[in-house]
Amino acid sequence: MTRNPRVQGPDPRPGGEVNFGTSPIRIVALAGGVGAARLLHGMVEAVDPSQISVIVNTGDDTVLHGMHVSPDIDTVVYTLAALSDPDRGWGLSGETWTANDRLRSLGGNAWFQLGDRDIATHMMRTDLLAAGRTLSEATVHLASAHGLGAPRIMPMTDDPVQTRVTLAGSGDEVGFQEYFVKLAHDVAVSQVRYAGAETAAPAPGVLDALRLADAIVICPSNPILSIAPILAVPAIGSAIQELRDRVVAISPLVRGRALKGPADRILRELGFEASAAGVASIYRDLAATFVLDNQDAPLADRVRELGVRPVLTDTIMTDAAAAAKLSLTAIDAVAAGRAA
Amino acid sequence: MTRNPRVQGPDPRPGGEVNFGTSPIRIVALAGGVGAARLLHGMVEAVDPSQISVIVNTGDDTVLHGMHVSPDIDTVVYTLAALSDPDRGWGLSGETWTANDRLRSLGGNAWFQLGDRDIATHMMRTDLLAAGRTLSEATVHLASAHGLGAPRIMPMTDDPVQTRVTLAGSGDEVGFQEYFVKLAHDVAVSQVRYAGAETAAPAPGVLDALRLADAIVICPSNPILSIAPILAVPAIGSAIQELRDRVVAISPLVRGRALKGPADRILRELGFEASAAGVASIYRDLAATFVLDNQDAPLADRVRELGVRPVLTDTIMTDAAAAAKLSLTAIDAVAAGRAA
Repeated sequence: MTRNPRVQGPDPRPGGEVNFGTSPIRIVALAGGVGAARLLHGMVEAVDPSQISVIVNTGDDTVLHGMHVSPDIDTVVYTLAALSDPDRGWGLSGETWTANDRLRSLGGNAWFQLGDRDIATHMMRTDLLAAGRTLSEATVHLASAHGLGAPRIMPMTDDPVQTRVTLAGSGDEVGFQEYFVKLAHDVAVSQVRYAGAETAAPAPGVLDALRLADAIVICPSNPILSIAPILAVPAIGSAIQELRDRVVAISPLVRGRALKGPADRILRELGFEASAAGVASIYRDLAATFVLDNQDAPLADRVRELGVRPVLTDTIMTDAAAAAKLSLTAIDAVAAGRAA
Repeated sequence: MTRNPRVQGPDPRPGGEVNFGTSPIRIVALAGGVGAARLLHGMVEAVDPSQISVIVNTGDDTVLHGMHVSPDIDTVVYTLAALSDPDRGWGLSGETWTANDRLRSLGGNAWFQLGDRDIATHMMRTDLLAAGRTLSEATVHLASAHGLGAPRIMPMTDDPVQTRVTLAGSGDEVGFQEYFVKLAHDVAVSQVRYAGAETAAPAPGVLDALRLADAIVICPSNPILSIAPILAVPAIGSAIQELRDRVVAISPLVRGRALKGPADRILRELGFEASAAGVASIYRDLAATFVLDNQDAPLADRVRELGVRPVLTDTIMTDAAAAAKLSLTAIDAVAAGRAA
């Protein structure tokens, strides 16, 4: 079991069996899709992957053509298995599109763009669920089938949760994928809700992983669309609130803009400030530490005024090494904060 | 509207609006998969396709990986659209197997061998059914999307019917596809039933097509596995019994053997005689005319003793021309029989 010597610090928990100085540290990451996958891609180089648990948003899950698709789980698995397409950011590298092209020619709904190899993932998951396996079990199978022994990838819940988006223009409520993929998130949003979350139970292992974690990292995913659905599962939200001093969130915004996706726009549309400080205020009751980009240094004082400890660093993940460094900075900051 | 001048004969129905001598004749074919598709491939060259209705077995329909698969409908559509693979006899020509190969590598059930382009058909059908369309409507859409204007392809029913097979060895009952594809029909069968058939209604248009038909052709498909499920829909079975003088069945056996598939073996296993005469006895109450191969000439008297008029011809469809000729012989025989 390797551990990273850069992560240091005493364990402040009474009777804690983990010591930042001598034991491998245990990390939980709350993850959406692409932004999270990019961070995790580096984190597994910085921290013993067997000590990492990833709790993944399933609010984007959908049934497409009869198949159960878990876009964020797949993005995390494909990325960590080094099988993802680096340019697109989603899906498998070397993918072909025979079925999807044919579906379009048959007059079908081909907007989701399922690749032929990706389809096999959804077939497999659908069969496992139809055979009575849980989404957690299906995820274990799929991660392993993709050659991924660690980290452990967990759906936030095995219960159905659906992120639903109300379009500002029409007032229509649509599913997440229709908003995000079909409409290319190019429309204003007036409301987002997480249908089913209020009665959803955390997936097996989620609460234990959180309680045993030395650091809980909220990945730089979309706060509203990717992280909020996880926190909307009541037992997860309250566990993270209780563990606030171990929680560090990484801003997905730099100079008020998302590097990818509609996080800045959707924050504004829902009445939040589209800035790192705005994101810190959303997470203030959940994360004692907040990592923001050096370019947002002027916002550090505002973060501090929220009762959150700001940590400035370079958050733009140009490569795995940058992502590894960002991961370590975030984890170090938890250790440092708890030692303070 | 073209009509085939080779099909002659007066219309014996009182007040009948169709005259075999001057009007296009109307044909209904009862079809299973490959054997039926081969006959129909020729029939559409011999008879105006717009006057042909095909009632297709759906007892083989199954849900695979969440998608609704209608193997016999697809075989008929692909064949008539000239898109089927001539060597395999099923599926599309020029097919690729990316998803299926990947599914196998993920540890999935890849035995059904879905091609990538074929998958698009099942996605499309699944989406149409999920949107509340009937299987009939989905079939119209898919036939049209494959460029097939005629003949009209109809499922036998829009209700779920499942051909279930009891294996002689274990006594286990399995679905049709598990028997036929997974086990490669290489096991003995002790019973076959058509679950759901007793309460199934004919698909819209089926009974009208039968009543208006000048000739009803039972294709040389497997009597037990492909034709019996159609006849097991009560209103179809009784309509065909009433119309017996217009019904002609074509033997799928020559010298006691099926040209393809397990028809001979399964007949024997279920206690029938595996011969053209055995098949004629199964159809005796439904078909007044029975076409058998010249090689089975010695069986003609036995067929006649069943109260069925035997017609000897070459039933082996080496090409579309042979299939066209066989179709005409069968249709002519109905006209001749009714004139007699």
